[in-house]
Amino acid sequence: MIVMKETATEEEIEAVIDKIERAGAVPHRSRGARVTVIGAIGDVEQDASVESIGLEGQPGVDRVVPILKPYKLASSQFRHGERTVLDIGGRKVGGEHFALIAGPCTVESREQVLATADVVKDAGVAMFRGGAYKPRTSPYAFQGLGQEGLRLLAEAKERTGLPIVTELMDARDLEPVLEVADVIQVGARNMQNFPLLAEIGRSGRPALLKRGLSATLDELLMAAEYILKEGNPNVMLCERGIKTFETSYRVTLDLQAVPVLKELSHLPVIVDPSHAAGRRSLVGPMSLAAAAAGADGIIVEVHPNPDEALCDGPQALLADDFADYAAAVERAAMLAGKVFSNA
Amino acid sequence: MIVMKETATEEEIEAVIDKIERAGAVPHRSRGARVTVIGAIGDVEQDASVESIGLEGQPGVDRVVPILKPYKLASSQFRHGERTVLDIGGRKVGGEHFALIAGPCTVESREQVLATADVVKDAGVAMFRGGAYKPRTSPYAFQGLGQEGLRLLAEAKERTGLPIVTELMDARDLEPVLEVADVIQVGARNMQNFPLLAEIGRSGRPALLKRGLSATLDELLMAAEYILKEGNPNVMLCERGIKTFETSYRVTLDLQAVPVLKELSHLPVIVDPSHAAGRRSLVGPMSLAAAAAGADGIIVEVHPNPDEALCDGPQALLADDFADYAAAVERAAMLAGKVFSNA
Amino acid sequence: MIVMKETATEEEIEAVIDKIERAGAVPHRSRGARVTVIGAIGDVEQDASVESIGLEGQPGVDRVVPILKPYKLASSQFRHGERTVLDIGGRKVGGEHFALIAGPCTVESREQVLATADVVKDAGVAMFRGGAYKPRTSPYAFQGLGQEGLRLLAEAKERTGLPIVTELMDARDLEPVLEVADVIQVGARNMQNFPLLAEIGRSGRPALLKRGLSATLDELLMAAEYILKEGNPNVMLCERGIKTFETSYRVTLDLQAVPVLKELSHLPVIVDPSHAAGRRSLVGPMSLAAAAAGADGIIVEVHPNPDEALCDGPQALLADDFADYAAAVERAAMLAGKVFSNA
Amino acid sequence: MIVMKETATEEEIEAVIDKIERAGAVPHRSRGARVTVIGAIGDVEQDASVESIGLEGQPGVDRVVPILKPYKLASSQFRHGERTVLDIGGRKVGGEHFALIAGPCTVESREQVLATADVVKDAGVAMFRGGAYKPRTSPYAFQGLGQEGLRLLAEAKERTGLPIVTELMDARDLEPVLEVADVIQVGARNMQNFPLLAEIGRSGRPALLKRGLSATLDELLMAAEYILKEGNPNVMLCERGIKTFETSYRVTLDLQAVPVLKELSHLPVIVDPSHAAGRRSLVGPMSLAAAAAGADGIIVEVHPNPDEALCDGPQALLADDFADYAAAVERAAMLAGKVFSNA
Repeated sequence: MIVMKETATEEEIEAVIDKIERAGAVPHRSRGARVTVIGAIGDVEQDASVESIGLEGQPGVDRVVPILKPYKLASSQFRHGERTVLDIGGRKVGGEHFALIAGPCTVESREQVLATADVVKDAGVAMFRGGAYKPRTSPYAFQGLGQEGLRLLAEAKERTGLPIVTELMDARDLEPVLEVADVIQVGARNMQNFPLLAEIGRSGRPALLKRGLSATLDELLMAAEYILKEGNPNVMLCERGIKTFETSYRVTLDLQAVPVLKELSHLPVIVDPSHAAGRRSLVGPMSLAAAAAGADGIIVEVHPNPDEALCDGPQALLADDFADYAAAVERAAMLAGKVFSNA
Repeated sequence: MIVMKETATEEEIEAVIDKIERAGAVPHRSRGARVTVIGAIGDVEQDASVESIGLEGQPGVDRVVPILKPYKLASSQFRHGERTVLDIGGRKVGGEHFALIAGPCTVESREQVLATADVVKDAGVAMFRGGAYKPRTSPYAFQGLGQEGLRLLAEAKERTGLPIVTELMDARDLEPVLEVADVIQVGARNMQNFPLLAEIGRSGRPALLKRGLSATLDELLMAAEYILKEGNPNVMLCERGIKTFETSYRVTLDLQAVPVLKELSHLPVIVDPSHAAGRRSLVGPMSLAAAAAGADGIIVEVHPNPDEALCDGPQALLADDFADYAAAVERAAMLAGKVFSNA
Repeated sequence: MIVMKETATEEEIEAVIDKIERAGAVPHRSRGARVTVIGAIGDVEQDASVESIGLEGQPGVDRVVPILKPYKLASSQFRHGERTVLDIGGRKVGGEHFALIAGPCTVESREQVLATADVVKDAGVAMFRGGAYKPRTSPYAFQGLGQEGLRLLAEAKERTGLPIVTELMDARDLEPVLEVADVIQVGARNMQNFPLLAEIGRSGRPALLKRGLSATLDELLMAAEYILKEGNPNVMLCERGIKTFETSYRVTLDLQAVPVLKELSHLPVIVDPSHAAGRRSLVGPMSLAAAAAGADGIIVEVHPNPDEALCDGPQALLADDFADYAAAVERAAMLAGKVFSNA
Repeated sequence: MIVMKETATEEEIEAVIDKIERAGAVPHRSRGARVTVIGAIGDVEQDASVESIGLEGQPGVDRVVPILKPYKLASSQFRHGERTVLDIGGRKVGGEHFALIAGPCTVESREQVLATADVVKDAGVAMFRGGAYKPRTSPYAFQGLGQEGLRLLAEAKERTGLPIVTELMDARDLEPVLEVADVIQVGARNMQNFPLLAEIGRSGRPALLKRGLSATLDELLMAAEYILKEGNPNVMLCERGIKTFETSYRVTLDLQAVPVLKELSHLPVIVDPSHAAGRRSLVGPMSLAAAAAGADGIIVEVHPNPDEALCDGPQALLADDFADYAAAVERAAMLAGKVFSNA
């Protein structure tokens, strides 16, 4: 839909119409009291969309308004309003199924991983999370145990039977990660690392895709489209906070994203309350809020001894409090018509 | 706390110390491995705070870090951790009391106001809201019925017994508003209209103060301080969304503000889910989320026939659905340990 | 322009068409490959615009895309591309005329005001600025000298012949402000104080309208429209920075606003580099940048002794450096084809 | 610097002091009228900073205020206030040297690349830019010519002698990119792709690092630190716009970043006005503004026939206007005391 300027001349209008025709679309002209609007209708494919005709900035053009959403496979329409339900080692996510995913921010030691895995298993979570590769703002910060961390996650999986969620930061690490990960996490900073998304798409492994810190929901869905387009339909979207001017917490958790993403897409929507809050006291209230808002799951950090954590200790739930926390989240999820998912 | 530059000279450090002393504070110097930090301790009053000494920008000074919060009466410390509970015509707000406040965006007609008042009364709300004076972005938009609107609100109050919440935009309208309002609402655009805040402070009438669209929580609390300072302790804080880059809804409802404001302040925290969402389908999920996050109340728009509303119809709940909505909100509030407040 | 959902039924489409007709507009239906788009064309007045028909949220409607800008008198089209040039006591602003406006943030004392006025007069500025009423985030901060401040400004005007720019915060202070102000400044926090804007509109006095800290350019132009609509055509728009997540300076000066406002509107565009920067070292570079970007003027703070300033001292230029500063700004303005305006 | 809560007990204060000591730092306690502040001074290394002690969230702790900047090699202090001047094939960047870098957004064809290269060479630019690998929000959009694109850039380099700036998106493409790139560009979306940054650091090749769309300046400098830490000192920082709520242009070009980055770091600062603007009419004014603000260079898009461009045509300068544009930019750079850099 091309909105012409009030001052556009007949020649400028015809130049636009001509360009639309050369791009293989059918122009459709509406003359209003003050401006002319030209629709570009018809055979325009997703990959030759109105935007790509390059009309923006053309003489006489005020602006180009895209009518169709830029994503296709991720859209609600693609599944005709039916919701995607993933099955991760017997744990369902999406539709009426709510998945609580918990574990330490970072794999630090055998004791820490196994103790945490036992605690969250007992509390009835659906999956275990833990980072072996950690993206850190500072090159001087602890970067994760790498392959040794993956080995410890494999041990936790064997011991508890819980599916594993862990992050992939570098496409060159795909092989070892595939050996242990039931779900590959894409961190917020990699949401638009397009080669990485395509590799995960080709792997076919379920993915948990975190929203970038300043990504719009449309951009998040376009990032999901990169994975889906490679033939991998198993994508969970994850809201984890966006940057704003507010400084009294780390980032702003955008819970309106939950109902909006569920309107726009058939994919499950997970919320990560730990990273947005940056401190433990906010994680409980925001977890209940996320579940009540209709999230399909929560991914949260827990640590047996947060004071000793090498990364993000202050935001980790205490292992001792975790069973009560999980019970409260379950009640909030029920309020939104959800059933807790565990095996 | 004044952080000096690494390159600061002894003269520059002494000039800072001298200036702190002249301002009546006690300087306290800490020499680190790379930088010197100077504390300004002691008799510095709120109204002669470190910032006002004017050290920022002084030669050799890297930055000034305020240690104390700039508000006093609004702070948690002021009431030693005890929470303020307001009593508005017998309805309590704050502490364990949750107040649902509902009504039309704008007073449009006698039929609309009374029909809506009956519906929300039957559903057990605590108060009735409705705008007689409407701040509108466009000078060409409907600006409210003014005094005629106030008269209709008085009639609704008489009929239902519900306390009235209505907005004051102009200090010159204070008299007529005081005749009907049990709670004076300050809109987001007026959060920093300081003369208006001071007038409301002097009036002593309870106030519902909406957070500005780009206000930080500290700025919201400073605005509350303007009211409190005039001797009016009856202030409710209201989160109603902040501007971000996201375009798929109107503004971003910041629910993390709920637990954070409750850490920072003793004042009740209300959430307005209608204006942030801008559309009805998001209001239900975000209301449950707000209540589950621990809000002390919700202020929401409802209309007997939103299609005919003169203002913000698409975000108004349907009167027919309102009783179910109120019951769901009550369950979510209970999850957070709250009791619904009604007479 | 109403975009229907892909799933919209024929009934839903016809309901929209019906509603457009009842609002007095002519519906115009375009059926695309996937969605239907309905234009509402014709007699729709500004004050009964498509938005106000209330179609957003109607069943089957995906979204409503406004085609016309919501402001009329402020738009470039209103003056057919010709630029407004104001004449303030013989100093022109707009078109090819560049106005440097300088003075202290706040009127503090007779000595300070007169000394600063002499300095900026000698450097060839177009107008003198100074605040008698100061909006302060904290109720405990210095709020300005009020009427005594206005009296000192009048003395500075008499002495130097420079027109005076000063802020009005409260409509109840209009009378005394009109006695001295050649230009009434509306602060960023009052950009959407609609009763105040309307009063200034009715006064007919030239206005300098600052952009709110999170206002879009469309909102700024709508605020200007409130003044213009009352018959006062003398409005200058002022960019002074917007809130972002960046914390290494106070707010983000949006210089792209300069060319964009000049595309959208015929009104002069002024830049205030002092408040965005918050510190002196940034004011010089940003002033040159603003002038080079094509601003019609700069409003800047200068102080004979910033260390002693009661408000915003660190961002004030030093009086001793001011003549060099003004000369550099003039060179940058010339680069953009502008001539310095002074009497 | 650890700020304790007003309510902190003596035990809590001692627990913090104990933890600082166990981390190898020296605690330094200051008791104020209302709160206690504890400094952690001394041997704390960059990689064992106060933040990593994990005091945030500890009982009784209000907040942790880092005193030192988290980057070291990128800081002004590291070079004692001296500025880095890069030499790229004889073209200097930084200090008094201003580099204009121009070329098409994307390499599309031999004709397009060579024609553009001739135009910008004749106008006296310092380097030629062009993308062979293009990060695109949509997986359906043109992703660049890849290795064929690199080959065409090599031909342009041979023909004009201009150094080549081109983007690396995937560490697995480093080898072929190193064969032609004199400067490796890191796109905004990859600013925190830490494995990619480390690879570029190890390669030793000069890098142009674009600021992420919501990155703070501190985060940009930490990303630079990832490259510098691997022994590669040749880094240029590039401001290209940040996301805000404003919708009348693509993103907000943050020119205040120019003087602030030059205060914080010794590295050259380049501005990309094309991507922020998204349309040609803003590129000229913002280029002059960037140069007048003191930027060390500009990277800009130019196309012989933007209407036919496969990517971002509307923001490309017209080849026919380029010589005039370059001359105007040179005048603006001279205003800031810079000399155009060309061989």
